[in-house]
Amino acid sequence: MQQAVDTLTIQTRGQGLHEFTNAVRQFVTNCDVATGLLTIYVRHTSCSLLIQENADGDVKTDLLGFFARPVPEGMDWLVHTTEGPDDMPAHIKAALTQTSISIPVVDGAPVFGTWQGIYLFEHRKRPHGREVVLHIIGDR
Amino acid sequence: MQQAVDTLTIQTRGQGLHEFTNAVRQFVTNCDVATGLLTIYVRHTSCSLLIQENADGDVKTDLLGFFARPVPEGMDWLVHTTEGPDDMPAHIKAALTQTSISIPVVDGAPVFGTWQGIYLFEHRKRPHGREVVLHIIGDR
Amino acid sequence: MQQAVDTLTIQTRGQGLHEFTNAVRQFVTNCDVATGLLTIYVRHTSCSLLIQENADGDVKTDLLGFFARPVPEGMDWLVHTTEGPDDMPAHIKAALTQTSISIPVVDGAPVFGTWQGIYLFEHRKRPHGREVVLHIIGDR
Repeated sequence: MQQAVDTLTIQTRGQGLHEFTNAVRQFVTNCDVATGLLTIYVRHTSCSLLIQENADGDVKTDLLGFFARPVPEGMDWLVHTTEGPDDMPAHIKAALTQTSISIPVVDGAPVFGTWQGIYLFEHRKRPHGREVVLHIIGDR
Repeated sequence: MQQAVDTLTIQTRGQGLHEFTNAVRQFVTNCDVATGLLTIYVRHTSCSLLIQENADGDVKTDLLGFFARPVPEGMDWLVHTTEGPDDMPAHIKAALTQTSISIPVVDGAPVFGTWQGIYLFEHRKRPHGREVVLHIIGDR
Repeated sequence: MQQAVDTLTIQTRGQGLHEFTNAVRQFVTNCDVATGLLTIYVRHTSCSLLIQENADGDVKTDLLGFFARPVPEGMDWLVHTTEGPDDMPAHIKAALTQTSISIPVVDGAPVFGTWQGIYLFEHRKRPHGREVVLHIIGDR
């Protein structure tokens, strides 16, 4: 049984879904684990993780469009406003999605479905460098 | 330390919550792991996973009723409409719930609470065969 | 490779976010694991887990304020009402957040970001004792 850990820094350019499936696949390939468990963890609370369809880019547009509806900017009852009007909505969107996702590894690859990709979901308007930790445990 | 992986195919019959707790318990029993970590992963983006109360079936009815409210069919601003009117709402509901869930295993069984069951949450209207991957790592 | 499991009982005093980051850090320190994977699992379906900002307490206030909006008490279409008016809304809020969270462990500590804390999100109005299971697997 062996383990490996790596940290990716994903540069975001404002609100949106940034796919990093290929970097995750590369990490698993480099670790030379045939059977195991991969965990993806984001070290922030104003962005989050999501596994979604990566066949049609319109899905990303609609996900962004959806979350802006129940969680708009300008909710006048918010009290945490010191970090800007997009900060508390970002925390709420992160609460509604994921901070960690674990994926079994079989035959040396994560068992993503045919249309699944892994995304960093940036909820802030300004560009950020986001740290995502990858951990794998398994057997060669 | 040992591992095992299996894939369940869950046949759904339209939108709803399909419990598969017993299949998960059986997998853990068959693997003969006393202490470990079980991970459940769904290979699709228009259905999802949920741990919920399995004592009263009305909870399932109300969960279905709830998600149809903020995520109805017919949102006229959606752009991803080529796969049918229930497809993009399905992706959104999947984003709001889980693609993977990990559960510690103690004394040879997952540590489900007394009223907890694990569900495949189907968000599409037509029947589908849904692949759920089970992974366990631990000691006898 | 080694494992450890422990169960925390968190006493809640009504709806709100109860941080237990220090107890999680202490568990990891006690287990003497340098590199590994920590999993946190809650054995209930009317409370949940959340990783959120722990720098400004106002974030907790606004998260509580947010979830009460799409999931208020008194939704007259609910059928699961036998356990009180706050029970089915609690199940829905749990469905929208997390039952399990996994965090890589590096250099003997979970890789929480600078502002991240782990919270038990209590959705019921009455005080409850909530069981949270901690599992770690890794190397010294």
